[in-house]
Amino acid sequence: MRVTEIRELSVPLEGNISNAVVNFAEHTVSLVAVLTDVVRDGRQVIGLAFNSIGRFAQGGIIRDRVIPRMMAAGTDALLDAEGSGFDPAKVLATAMRNEKPGGHGDRAGAVGALELAFWDLNAKLRGEPAWVTIARHFGTTPQEAMPVYAAGGYYYGTGGAGQLRDELLRYRDMGFDAYKMKIGGASLADDVRRIEEALTVAGDGSRLAVDANGRFGFDEAIAYADAIRPFGLRWYEEIGDPLDYDLNRRVAECYDGPIATGENLFSAVDTRNLLRHGGMRPGRDVFQMDAGISYGLVEYGRMIALMEEHGFDRRFAFPHGGHMINLHIVVGMGLGGCEAYPGVFQPFGGYAAECRLVGSRVVPGASPGFGLEAKDDLRPAIAHLLN
Amino acid sequence: MRVTEIRELSVPLEGNISNAVVNFAEHTVSLVAVLTDVVRDGRQVIGLAFNSIGRFAQGGIIRDRVIPRMMAAGTDALLDAEGSGFDPAKVLATAMRNEKPGGHGDRAGAVGALELAFWDLNAKLRGEPAWVTIARHFGTTPQEAMPVYAAGGYYYGTGGAGQLRDELLRYRDMGFDAYKMKIGGASLADDVRRIEEALTVAGDGSRLAVDANGRFGFDEAIAYADAIRPFGLRWYEEIGDPLDYDLNRRVAECYDGPIATGENLFSAVDTRNLLRHGGMRPGRDVFQMDAGISYGLVEYGRMIALMEEHGFDRRFAFPHGGHMINLHIVVGMGLGGCEAYPGVFQPFGGYAAECRLVGSRVVPGASPGFGLEAKDDLRPAIAHLLN
Repeated sequence: MRVTEIRELSVPLEGNISNAVVNFAEHTVSLVAVLTDVVRDGRQVIGLAFNSIGRFAQGGIIRDRVIPRMMAAGTDALLDAEGSGFDPAKVLATAMRNEKPGGHGDRAGAVGALELAFWDLNAKLRGEPAWVTIARHFGTTPQEAMPVYAAGGYYYGTGGAGQLRDELLRYRDMGFDAYKMKIGGASLADDVRRIEEALTVAGDGSRLAVDANGRFGFDEAIAYADAIRPFGLRWYEEIGDPLDYDLNRRVAECYDGPIATGENLFSAVDTRNLLRHGGMRPGRDVFQMDAGISYGLVEYGRMIALMEEHGFDRRFAFPHGGHMINLHIVVGMGLGGCEAYPGVFQPFGGYAAECRLVGSRVVPGASPGFGLEAKDDLRPAIAHLLN
Repeated sequence: MRVTEIRELSVPLEGNISNAVVNFAEHTVSLVAVLTDVVRDGRQVIGLAFNSIGRFAQGGIIRDRVIPRMMAAGTDALLDAEGSGFDPAKVLATAMRNEKPGGHGDRAGAVGALELAFWDLNAKLRGEPAWVTIARHFGTTPQEAMPVYAAGGYYYGTGGAGQLRDELLRYRDMGFDAYKMKIGGASLADDVRRIEEALTVAGDGSRLAVDANGRFGFDEAIAYADAIRPFGLRWYEEIGDPLDYDLNRRVAECYDGPIATGENLFSAVDTRNLLRHGGMRPGRDVFQMDAGISYGLVEYGRMIALMEEHGFDRRFAFPHGGHMINLHIVVGMGLGGCEAYPGVFQPFGGYAAECRLVGSRVVPGASPGFGLEAKDDLRPAIAHLLN
């Protein structure tokens, strides 16, 4: 068994939507393929993955640093003890050779896409869905389905009144019964009106989360906390700068409702700082780290282990990034759930037709690996990468 | 006045040396040029800079994300109030358009190289050395020269006994009277022997610093602290993971000698976490953040301001990265000093011939800007980039 080639393609995200901080019109995602000389059922076995959604493609780092290290190391250096699959910890260590500590940013996405492609490859070599491989690797009891909520409620480039309600109604028609919306991109008064509009669809605050995308300083964070407290919302997400642990702690001391954060922490050591300094409360607050932008599943597993060491239950892990890869990770590792982007971030957002949405839960399909090939709108990018 | 083009060239670093964590043989640096339509003394005015030394070139991010944003914004969006130079804060904001918070890694080097090229450009437009421009911008009283110490003492790929002493003797012959060496890449006993060997050249512990490059866990950190305490060393650098603030705090509680860290913190928010949680002691401990890998001089200025808000004197800032750009930053901002790499990291390490080394202090030359064109061994890379 040989890795014969590793390729990357930077794929643009569709849509012209904004949160409180960024517009996604120029965002891209790195699709990575690990090609092998293994043939199963007459087809070459190829591992596929991408670096989640929302932090740009990493073609430069992947081509300049990561792929040369992987090819120089050779396949034998990557194999597991049985020699029938790949050891993801060896993949990670090889991809990170001669990288210095600290600086967990773009590099974490470059390595994440690559490492996850080896999980896809391992699952395909066994002919099983990736969640089965993941559950076996981590010794976890998988779930049968993944609870999801529809993450949307963006600020649109055009239009306004009624558009948020219409968006959430579309999600409800698809079968979702929980939602997340952006705040912090308008005035507090306007955002309160948007929340009230969203609650006409969500029904109860426990089915609506709000996301500030790291925009608030302390005073604004508390003003919003005071304004949203009566709604009893599901959670208040990424309140301040994602690395301002002290701000998170101070807000948690003033706001009884659940707080969620972590999607912009890309390493175990950053996650440990949140656990040490961020004032997160076991049994209440939610962690949203995302393997695809965090060096992959080995590092993500370290994050979950740190959560548990600090007294948190893994069912309070809800990864950022609503897509096929996180579906398999959440099901395989027994996490709390995940967001879904039913309307946006195509072709990477959302799930293949074979993944059934049953009462706001997604059931993975039977395709081997992460099943990216089964997602119709991803097929053209995959074909482009492989041809 | 128009920015007509921005270019990047990834230049390999010379040398096959290692610290406790990485080998530098495959390291690269991004050299960036900002071309204008301004002609002075018959020559096109071009801003030049690079992303310091040691964290890889960033050609992918610069070409895929940064340059398109700069060119789309246009020159007028970047000009200062007088219109005769560029506003570095506008340059930074434009380069960071649609970037999310958090993830301060490779991106910080990509933007750092670009932002610093505009400082070089501003100084050339005024026909003055960059330290003059920097001092004026920040309202600081510049120094006349920069205290330096020779940073070396690496682990060599071949050889061993006597090589460290020979290396430091070479530096002493060049005029240096203070030194830094690596530890943590050998056993504690071997490292103590290496320190004793180095002290035969340095003379006194106050003229020798040691650098663990973020390698130690707490127990090893304390074992080394206990072993080096009798030497009274200048400082004990980057003891544990650069983001493990709590480890730094715990070591600072046990070790009376100065501690230095910060070269792997690439943002003001990370620096603030070190100040809040790292147990750093005013009047004793040293900060080594480096503008070239930290979004440039605007963000670096924010870091210095945070240091001062937390009761630290800027003379305890000693940037990582011994090169022409940091020479001008240290002199212009009135910082404590800088490392020099007299033997390694060419063509970026070290100083142009016009920069005099006087009693372990470096005096900048008279060339406009950072004076990179005056450094003989950098000229081929500059010529390659511009032709």
